[in-house]
Amino acid sequence: MFLGDNWIGTEPYGDLFPSTGLDAVVGSVGNGATLRMISDIPGMKYTEGRFLPYFFPDVFYEGGNPTAEAIDNWVKARRAILRKPVDRIGYGGYLSLAASFPDFITCVEQIGEEFRTLYDRMNGTKAYTPKFKVAVLNSWGKLRSWQTTMVAHALWYKKIYSYLGMLESLSGLAVDVEFISFDDVLESGIPEDIGVILNAGDAGTAWSGDDYWANEAIIACLKQFVYNGGGFIGIGEPSAFMHQGRFFQMSDVLGVDKEIGYTLSYTKYDQENTSDHFIMGGQVKPIDCGEKVEFIRSVSEQTQIIQMQRGDIAVAANSFGKGRSVYIAGLPYSPANSRLLLRSIYWAASAENEMLTWYCDNVETECAVYLETGWGVVINNSLDPQRTKLYKNAESYIEVELKPGGHEWFRVDSLTNSSINKFGCY
Amino acid sequence: MFLGDNWIGTEPYGDLFPSTGLDAVVGSVGNGATLRMISDIPGMKYTEGRFLPYFFPDVFYEGGNPTAEAIDNWVKARRAILRKPVDRIGYGGYLSLAASFPDFITCVEQIGEEFRTLYDRMNGTKAYTPKFKVAVLNSWGKLRSWQTTMVAHALWYKKIYSYLGMLESLSGLAVDVEFISFDDVLESGIPEDIGVILNAGDAGTAWSGDDYWANEAIIACLKQFVYNGGGFIGIGEPSAFMHQGRFFQMSDVLGVDKEIGYTLSYTKYDQENTSDHFIMGGQVKPIDCGEKVEFIRSVSEQTQIIQMQRGDIAVAANSFGKGRSVYIAGLPYSPANSRLLLRSIYWAASAENEMLTWYCDNVETECAVYLETGWGVVINNSLDPQRTKLYKNAESYIEVELKPGGHEWFRVDSLTNSSINKFGCY
Repeated sequence: MFLGDNWIGTEPYGDLFPSTGLDAVVGSVGNGATLRMISDIPGMKYTEGRFLPYFFPDVFYEGGNPTAEAIDNWVKARRAILRKPVDRIGYGGYLSLAASFPDFITCVEQIGEEFRTLYDRMNGTKAYTPKFKVAVLNSWGKLRSWQTTMVAHALWYKKIYSYLGMLESLSGLAVDVEFISFDDVLESGIPEDIGVILNAGDAGTAWSGDDYWANEAIIACLKQFVYNGGGFIGIGEPSAFMHQGRFFQMSDVLGVDKEIGYTLSYTKYDQENTSDHFIMGGQVKPIDCGEKVEFIRSVSEQTQIIQMQRGDIAVAANSFGKGRSVYIAGLPYSPANSRLLLRSIYWAASAENEMLTWYCDNVETECAVYLETGWGVVINNSLDPQRTKLYKNAESYIEVELKPGGHEWFRVDSLTNSSINKFGCY
Repeated sequence: MFLGDNWIGTEPYGDLFPSTGLDAVVGSVGNGATLRMISDIPGMKYTEGRFLPYFFPDVFYEGGNPTAEAIDNWVKARRAILRKPVDRIGYGGYLSLAASFPDFITCVEQIGEEFRTLYDRMNGTKAYTPKFKVAVLNSWGKLRSWQTTMVAHALWYKKIYSYLGMLESLSGLAVDVEFISFDDVLESGIPEDIGVILNAGDAGTAWSGDDYWANEAIIACLKQFVYNGGGFIGIGEPSAFMHQGRFFQMSDVLGVDKEIGYTLSYTKYDQENTSDHFIMGGQVKPIDCGEKVEFIRSVSEQTQIIQMQRGDIAVAANSFGKGRSVYIAGLPYSPANSRLLLRSIYWAASAENEMLTWYCDNVETECAVYLETGWGVVINNSLDPQRTKLYKNAESYIEVELKPGGHEWFRVDSLTNSSINKFGCY
């Protein structure tokens, strides 16, 4: 089956899909999220990614640069492949068009070689992730895994890109991601291994949750989860449903709510009060919040206001019992925003002391470490040369230099404690 | 009674207010809308405006400039006074502070003189307005006359200024304004003399109307009104209530709707298709829409898209039966935006041929004409010198030159048909 611009009618994450008798799913890879949408489909003999650009005249014309598009596509997909690979990769279109671009042919050969190497060195094992899992909570849960807020595959759309950035970030981050629904929570509570719950979307949509947030069983379950030490990250209009005088039903957890016109006569003078928060490590303010949700206000003096923008709160953190929360007004994908999300996840999980376990300090770079095979790889997600420290832990790191879009393999046991070495293109 | 920052508990536009036995209402004048809020209160022996600045040390300090604030306040209030005057004006605070600013004393003397002259020359009569009335439609109607979307009197607030601009514009425009409620419409329909209905506000608020828009009697009445030749102007999220697949319940009238996440997979490629619309006469694009409502889309190929901004429709016009509509994504007050609203009102009323009756072509200037007393006045709402054509009608105008914030009186009968003269500070 080819999974292209849509999946309607197939439900590849439905319970019955593996029993339909399909051999494989081949899908169009537009970015990391679409790669994971294909590679995570359960029950197939194999999955295959069809990469961009297609060999069509819109890209393969005299003076066109299909090689640049191939590299961009590969760099975006690669970080997702390192978390869960498709089993095969390919390209499609009119071969005669590609044949007249020898640079492109060479580039694809290199990408193919890079893919084979990493597939072999992963050898069916999973890269290092922290013990706690991350759950994306919405009305669809598992059935819409890697499909949240997505429109027409990976196409940019003004209404969604500030939410899709969360999914794109997660597709390549070193965390295990589950998609859970409000009904799951109602039926089974929150699984023991979940450390952080994410809720992102516009008010009134399936992604944010709409009137599920007026269900006291859900509210009680989630607040108990955070109160006992869990993490909650809200993006955009999380938990939004006007009920009992609040718009964000998790506003006491998040420390913020949205002014929708009901409390205009209350004076509100929010200001940044937390200049140097853990989640901002390595980031340059201001964070790009894309189609930032406006009119976000603090509801408590305890709220840590990390970034104000256009007079409102754009990034905030809070604590609630033993747990913690982060609010972000919008998160378009960029390596910097992806790192912000990763650090928010660790902080919300109260696991910031583990942050430096297999961690690259340069936000343009990431690493994937396969402890079972003994291999690790550092990747450069940018098209500029990069240098990064690769931490095994807080005491031990090596310095790595990377070519534009490049990668460097290393043996895990080459990093002894307190070793400081260099590799890459030094 | 002093009407300062609030009116709660008094309801000055309530039916019983005139019977409470008050002699007068004295109110703080922050701008044109607050002036009208005081001057239009029915049933008082007199009303009085208390002007800014108050004689307090925050303005009256060594090096302070209370005169500039006095002029700014007077210029904003004057255009509203010309529509419906308070009967007295005054200032308040510590006289000893004012006494040490002789410039200020002189300025106030001049303002007092200007007020006495215009009050005498109005002599209880009303300035020229077109035959049709304008109705502001919301959930409160008359009870909240000149109080819509207002927070803490005339203070700026991010959430309201893009709506308050409509009220501030109307306070000084040469149109008769009524405030009507949805319940009025349900009980009595739309009064015969209403030419244009305005609906402005955020979704889910009393100003926009929330679930009144799911009431088919209201919808039917309003659509019939427009279909038969009436005008409808929507600002922000007019008629917004998710119902039967539409968010703006008047979307077929307005020609636009807001994308709230339900039709994301429909391709939408709106572009400006009306470069030179009547309502934009004398305006420079782009119109400042303030806290513009985002994600506005056309719902018909007939929609006249006048201004796109950040990828969405910001200003549009449409026709519906014999009637017309205008949509504006936000309207902070400025002389230019006030003119946009006036022209939108005339166009929506299909009265654009009457636009030049007592009209100043320079948007920084306006005129008020008292046909019963034979006096007219041209005012300069800016703090720069201005020159304008003052039209008696399409065939006859004179040129007027005005000092910064200045005004010039003229006798109505000095404009004969086809006369082209000059007055003012030439």
